[in-house]
Amino acid sequence: MKVTVHIERRPEIADPEGTTISRSLVDLGYDEVVSVRTGRTLHLEVEGDDADAVKERVDEMCQRLLANPVIEDYRIEVEA
Amino acid sequence: MKVTVHIERRPEIADPEGTTISRSLVDLGYDEVVSVRTGRTLHLEVEGDDADAVKERVDEMCQRLLANPVIEDYRIEVEA
Repeated sequence: MKVTVHIERRPEIADPEGTTISRSLVDLGYDEVVSVRTGRTLHLEVEGDDADAVKERVDEMCQRLLANPVIEDYRIEVEA
Repeated sequence: MKVTVHIERRPEIADPEGTTISRSLVDLGYDEVVSVRTGRTLHLEVEGDDADAVKERVDEMCQRLLANPVIEDYRIEVEA
């Protein structure tokens, strides 16, 4: 089963990488850029047939290893 | 206008970070994990009304700064 985890910093947490990218784009002439925020994506291939059970396990993986729940939000998408 | 850029390594390019995460998950007892690939997401706030024109400009940004077309694929999503 294919599972995608989208991990983003919480909106109130600063994103220095995004700020740097945004500034660089403006420096290159892309004045229309207002802001950039960065995120991470994890594509997991997981054995299992029950989408709900798989999602629950991946949620546990996020809490334990994949994300930092103090400063990050995450969203799990199980593909059919 | 909100634009999301999804950046992934090309399938033939090794992903050591993904491999490490995958191994760590198995070590933690998540034996069902077969593989993990990592990607990056950029959320841009861009001024402009014409979605096609905005997409074209962001494509140029990807080529010039945001992605490495030699080893990465990217996908641009303009939100309404």
